[in-house]
Amino acid sequence: MLTETKPPATSEELHLLCINTIRTLAMDAVEKARSGHPGAPMGAAAMAFVLWTEFLKHNPADPGWPDRDRFVLSAGHASMLLYSLLHLTGYEVSIDDLQSFRQWGSITPGHPEYGHTPGVEVTTGPLGQGFATGVGMAMAERFLAQRFNRPGHAIVDHNIFAIVSDGDLMEGLSHEAASLAGHLGLGKIVYLYDSNDISIDGSTSLSFTDDVGKRFEGYGWFVARVGDGNDLDQLRQAIRAAVDSPLPALVQVKTHIGYGAPTKQDSASSHGAPLGPDEVRGAKQNLGWPVDESFAVPEAVRAFFGAAVARGKLAQRNWEDLFRSYQRRYPLDAAEFERTQAGELPEGWDAELPAFTADDGKVATRQASGAAINAIAPTLPELVGGSADLAESNLTDIKGESWFDSDGVAGRNIHFGVREHAMGAALNGISLHGGLRPFGGTFLIFSDYMRPALRLASLMGVTSIFVYTHDSIGLGEDGPTHQPIEHLASLRAIPGLVVLRPADANETVAAWRFAVGYRGGPVAICLTRQALPVLEQPDGARPPVERGAYAVVEPGVGPPDLVLLSTGSEVHLCVDAAAELTGRGISTRVVSMPSWELFNAQDAGYRKRLLETSPAGARVAVEAASPMGWHRYVGEFGDIIGLERFGASAPGDVVLRELGFTVENVVARSLQALGR
Amino acid sequence: MLTETKPPATSEELHLLCINTIRTLAMDAVEKARSGHPGAPMGAAAMAFVLWTEFLKHNPADPGWPDRDRFVLSAGHASMLLYSLLHLTGYEVSIDDLQSFRQWGSITPGHPEYGHTPGVEVTTGPLGQGFATGVGMAMAERFLAQRFNRPGHAIVDHNIFAIVSDGDLMEGLSHEAASLAGHLGLGKIVYLYDSNDISIDGSTSLSFTDDVGKRFEGYGWFVARVGDGNDLDQLRQAIRAAVDSPLPALVQVKTHIGYGAPTKQDSASSHGAPLGPDEVRGAKQNLGWPVDESFAVPEAVRAFFGAAVARGKLAQRNWEDLFRSYQRRYPLDAAEFERTQAGELPEGWDAELPAFTADDGKVATRQASGAAINAIAPTLPELVGGSADLAESNLTDIKGESWFDSDGVAGRNIHFGVREHAMGAALNGISLHGGLRPFGGTFLIFSDYMRPALRLASLMGVTSIFVYTHDSIGLGEDGPTHQPIEHLASLRAIPGLVVLRPADANETVAAWRFAVGYRGGPVAICLTRQALPVLEQPDGARPPVERGAYAVVEPGVGPPDLVLLSTGSEVHLCVDAAAELTGRGISTRVVSMPSWELFNAQDAGYRKRLLETSPAGARVAVEAASPMGWHRYVGEFGDIIGLERFGASAPGDVVLRELGFTVENVVARSLQALGR
Repeated sequence: MLTETKPPATSEELHLLCINTIRTLAMDAVEKARSGHPGAPMGAAAMAFVLWTEFLKHNPADPGWPDRDRFVLSAGHASMLLYSLLHLTGYEVSIDDLQSFRQWGSITPGHPEYGHTPGVEVTTGPLGQGFATGVGMAMAERFLAQRFNRPGHAIVDHNIFAIVSDGDLMEGLSHEAASLAGHLGLGKIVYLYDSNDISIDGSTSLSFTDDVGKRFEGYGWFVARVGDGNDLDQLRQAIRAAVDSPLPALVQVKTHIGYGAPTKQDSASSHGAPLGPDEVRGAKQNLGWPVDESFAVPEAVRAFFGAAVARGKLAQRNWEDLFRSYQRRYPLDAAEFERTQAGELPEGWDAELPAFTADDGKVATRQASGAAINAIAPTLPELVGGSADLAESNLTDIKGESWFDSDGVAGRNIHFGVREHAMGAALNGISLHGGLRPFGGTFLIFSDYMRPALRLASLMGVTSIFVYTHDSIGLGEDGPTHQPIEHLASLRAIPGLVVLRPADANETVAAWRFAVGYRGGPVAICLTRQALPVLEQPDGARPPVERGAYAVVEPGVGPPDLVLLSTGSEVHLCVDAAAELTGRGISTRVVSMPSWELFNAQDAGYRKRLLETSPAGARVAVEAASPMGWHRYVGEFGDIIGLERFGASAPGDVVLRELGFTVENVVARSLQALGR
Repeated sequence: MLTETKPPATSEELHLLCINTIRTLAMDAVEKARSGHPGAPMGAAAMAFVLWTEFLKHNPADPGWPDRDRFVLSAGHASMLLYSLLHLTGYEVSIDDLQSFRQWGSITPGHPEYGHTPGVEVTTGPLGQGFATGVGMAMAERFLAQRFNRPGHAIVDHNIFAIVSDGDLMEGLSHEAASLAGHLGLGKIVYLYDSNDISIDGSTSLSFTDDVGKRFEGYGWFVARVGDGNDLDQLRQAIRAAVDSPLPALVQVKTHIGYGAPTKQDSASSHGAPLGPDEVRGAKQNLGWPVDESFAVPEAVRAFFGAAVARGKLAQRNWEDLFRSYQRRYPLDAAEFERTQAGELPEGWDAELPAFTADDGKVATRQASGAAINAIAPTLPELVGGSADLAESNLTDIKGESWFDSDGVAGRNIHFGVREHAMGAALNGISLHGGLRPFGGTFLIFSDYMRPALRLASLMGVTSIFVYTHDSIGLGEDGPTHQPIEHLASLRAIPGLVVLRPADANETVAAWRFAVGYRGGPVAICLTRQALPVLEQPDGARPPVERGAYAVVEPGVGPPDLVLLSTGSEVHLCVDAAAELTGRGISTRVVSMPSWELFNAQDAGYRKRLLETSPAGARVAVEAASPMGWHRYVGEFGDIIGLERFGASAPGDVVLRELGFTVENVVARSLQALGR
């Protein structure tokens, strides 16, 4: 296809041809799509070439091989760099796929998407996310290495490589994640920093003049510098030093965005738009490329990159030999390794989950959550987690287990520090890595600090569990800065996230049973600070939380006059109001609705029956949160007792009372809704 | 009240008595509330004492004096430190108020709240926010100093002081804000870092081992260290050096959390809970305090702190003298200073706002927004703003104006860098400072990165304007990582935030007219990437965006068969569908609903009329976003064409079409809703 006037005579020429192939594929794909980011792939092609051909341990024929190195393109806009590498090294990404870049139904979307394209380890694009997700992957690697490796059998031993950009390092998330990685000394991290001095608005000198090296040394990272990002020897030496360092490593590589483009190199104009036909021709000319060829891959280049398949197969075969030896010596460990890699739960994992009765008195749902975690943990060693500096409030500690610390001990309890966003992204990384089931806790209000990571968890469908305590104004004195109002609605609006707000200890246990068993995506469990009574369940049955909603008070046969819909702590208010209303001759059903998503997934008959009232009946929803979304369930003539204001600082029971969460108000508003 | 066995004999003794008064007031208030954070006020009392009595320029009798220094308690949980200082230095905060700490209706809530307590400059508590808000205040100070100061008349010349904690510095937001402040060289910033080596989970060594000094030097800050946070001379010298430095300054002060408490000093147990009566007694004993006194303020202490009033009045009087001289020399500038300080708009500020007609062809609402900004800017010099590295996409540049840069030029265009969260908090700081009207742009998707700042903007009621472009899947190729779905719902759920999603160029202009005129709180304007036709308005009238919703297609007198409700780009789809439905004999109203909040605030008659249909009629909502919340307007039997999934990477028109945003689908679903 390529009119090769000069086949490469030396390995230097061959390497340059490989690098220019990446550059031209990126240019061509962006040009054809009339959309995309050519500049970063052109600038970072050389470092990517060295990394992928000389360092990265991977098998394009089996992108899921557990002991592969992970490669994270944190600068997700440079997606054509990754797609080119995947194509050239033999993943199931064809030239046709590259030609369908950014088109409907293609496997080459604008930004890399996990689960969508073979070899893409993580969805990136929102800046900082890849950087922080890689930190979670490195935590997972250390954890699994400690759990499974045996003398002579390092079955878990791989690096986390990334290419990160100026934008990644400007985002606050990079601080949280780098500080955490430095603290924990995650030496398997090797990040190449594509330092091209350009951001979208122009030169980074406009807004970003950090001494990045000094900053990262302050975090305890190893920092190497490459003055010429096209000098393969410099790159090799720096990456080698970074891999060998026991510290997490940042290799700052000075590059030229849009390298080769005659007028757009070193300019923001090559960042986020096609270069245009003339500029592409000029760039190809500068790179010694046939100017009329598109999507050209010289044979020598295909052969050179293609060696990755044989190398990868060999590496995986060697690992499989090692693993077979491991199986013979450590059959139980090997079985556990395989089980956890497959994401399968062990028999009886939930056998010790507690059941609560009224005799237990009042129990905060965060307490029940702590009990559930500790009931599951002994039989589920892949369950690891922690809190963003609120362990004693979130009750997320696994008792008797050690901490994941900076001395190399990979305990199951993780101190994330006051770093909610990094925690969210790290949980994603731990989930993506495989072999572990992570959870992380903070106050519900601080879910705001980690929303971008939460969204990516949902988009990727990873199975992290988010533990959000202090879930309403009922938390009391800390006041409006700490009292969530809009957070339940905001979480429920995220596609693919299951939000659970259990009403008592048994619903909390059921929520955990559901969350651990669920493989469809992330789950958020919202929990009270304050103690709540235990709801009576018919015959002590488990509450059917997995159905999303069910009747906790059922007045009899046939549709009732009134249906009270509620979640969490407010369910108890409804139970008491129902007693009073029943006394007044109004038949009242109380529906506990721990999860809208799960309820919406039930069959129409179940949903209709649960919400149905007598012809003159009404439905009233009660939730100490934004009313947004409840109209769906109460209908146009129903009522919602919610909050369209911020909370206030006072004891929790006072705040609830003052803002209308009283039996009297529920009764009064219900009567009003019924027109009585 | 206090049984003073030993009145202070030396100024050293007096100072210590003052410091211990702060400590004991904090202990006592937390004890009485049975809730709160005693440890930080006890540890940071000495630095606060030095700062407030020897450096802070303020007038307790006039907390709004424009040239006061700003004090930000970024460690908002240490609220009793601030309340004690406000009380002792003579603000309208009484001992009774301190005794009502954390109670319903008090002015001493759990965390400081702006607008709630005299002397509180900013609501804090969510960590990192105060730190970053202060950076915005410093930007405002530089801007106003440049605009208004004249030789011999430095009418704007004040510092931004803060006390920040380990938690503040762990949050990613602190990185963004510190990097921005360092880049801009905001030398008026002096932050005292209460480095007590304790976070909620225990020692900071568990999770936080940054070399903070090195990190901040990497940002270009001046860093000073105080080894003994109780040594007043060390504190004085370090703060003096920090004030004198032309760089933003961090003074790292080693302190002892819970200083004086016999068993809880230097322990996380003194952080977030009352010490308990025994520990309080022990602490008082250690501090040489009468153990049985509560809320005691020795007379000598009251006198010493009380001098702040006279000092403050004198300082303000001197400034007022200066300002009168300024008025004589520069009457127009003085009038402008007073107008902008009062937040009043000049006559005719909106006279140049453009009106668009169909002849203008298709106009993206982001383009119309850029035009509106540039039409307002010449007559509204207090309008300053920028973008988080997306200026060319957000179209937020004020043309012909210079940049706010690192060389001391405070231009009206601000390069925030890839720092959405810091941008949000800095906008809050600029608003809080007074004298300016700030706006900031990013993609709607990245509103997620700045949610905590957005929430505080709403809680404080500051009047920042958030410009969110690329507001739907219509943005196209960048794909699901960049296509907002849940964001409109998530923003609408925040109390006090007005969300506007204009449907065309004229609605966009009206949105800006509303936003600039609105003093009730923050406004978010959501804008398209893609070009849209200009809607016909009756008699070329301005669209009544301030009513939140209005009919753009009105079929005639009386309620129509069908009401189509929509916002933004989807309104045009509805207009076309209405034409087709009308052709089929279905009278159809199309309602453009740029703001739910503004519509909900209209009188019941207006709302009812706009939504009313004929008896067998139906309402259908169309919005390329999460359907959450629309049931409120379409009713139980209406339909919603929305998105309960993530988007996809492809040209915008293709994505819209594939996901159901076509005239055909709107017609079909409308017919279905009507039962035809």
